[in-house]
Amino acid sequence: MSSPDPVSRRSDAERNRARVLDAARDALETADDVSMAEIARRAGVGMATLYRNFPDRRALLDTLYREEVDAVCAAADLAGGDAGGGFFVWVARFAEFVRGKRLIAAELLQHTGREDPVFGGSRDRVLVAARPLLVAAQADGSVRAGLSIEQVLDLVVSVLRIAQDAAYVDPILAAALDGLRVPSEVAD
Amino acid sequence: MSSPDPVSRRSDAERNRARVLDAARDALETADDVSMAEIARRAGVGMATLYRNFPDRRALLDTLYREEVDAVCAAADLAGGDAGGGFFVWVARFAEFVRGKRLIAAELLQHTGREDPVFGGSRDRVLVAARPLLVAAQADGSVRAGLSIEQVLDLVVSVLRIAQDAAYVDPILAAALDGLRVPSEVAD
Repeated sequence: MSSPDPVSRRSDAERNRARVLDAARDALETADDVSMAEIARRAGVGMATLYRNFPDRRALLDTLYREEVDAVCAAADLAGGDAGGGFFVWVARFAEFVRGKRLIAAELLQHTGREDPVFGGSRDRVLVAARPLLVAAQADGSVRAGLSIEQVLDLVVSVLRIAQDAAYVDPILAAALDGLRVPSEVAD
Repeated sequence: MSSPDPVSRRSDAERNRARVLDAARDALETADDVSMAEIARRAGVGMATLYRNFPDRRALLDTLYREEVDAVCAAADLAGGDAGGGFFVWVARFAEFVRGKRLIAAELLQHTGREDPVFGGSRDRVLVAARPLLVAAQADGSVRAGLSIEQVLDLVVSVLRIAQDAAYVDPILAAALDGLRVPSEVAD
């Protein structure tokens, strides 16, 4: 048999990389101490393939985290056409990101500390992507004036830090987000 | 001269104790590393008097913290006559307690860990005192149904943990509390 041509070799490599990322993403949703060997096993690739793509655990976590941030920013761009409604749809997506990626984020924090550019840069990217949504929602009156996008996202993140399960936290988050709809001039 | 009678000796002792507590409370509002010597100096009492009242720093912090909790619980009892309005007045008082006593609480936590009875017991006392206020406010429709007093207080505490100044955090807290007024059935 002849060896595969360069194009199919490349798509094999891309497929393997995607399988590693999928396996790592799934594994990290439920546990934060998954080994590289376990990730390779779940992805069905050898250790050589795993380490060719991601030289260490930190590199794999960085990539996963960046991909999630890309998806959250892309969702903000998509929601942009719908002003107020789009804002709340996107905030729900952001909350899902914060909740699901907490283990990745927590482990990256151990590696890096808060001032790491992965984090600082991601926060800025999310803020830049989401700001137009908030501005549009405030302009059409579906979100109260007087809050910045930083304040809105800090509200969501702080509620999601409550160390309880979703059945406990979700109604708190729902109430807090409903508060964004209330005009700040009139309290009741 | 004759020595003071027992009654005035006792009231001297009580006055000294109160002066120490006042000085410690003031000092701890702005800094968490105030020494016992500095507290004695500010209170205008000698070290012997200070240590007769509070054998160590931990004992002084415990007393301060318990007094603050007493005051928060008493405020809930006072607010009880006014259903919905009373609830929001008391929540504002609770937020002030959480904000002002953060330094005391943070230092006590270093001494004790989260499972310490000072903390566990205080949380329960506050919950018991505040629960009737929330129930009354939910019954008269001024607070949405479906949230427990634990969830309401966790919302307040989580927002106040945002590591920014009051000018940044206060509008977030105001929005979150306005969310409590919105019926949970109707979002907008």
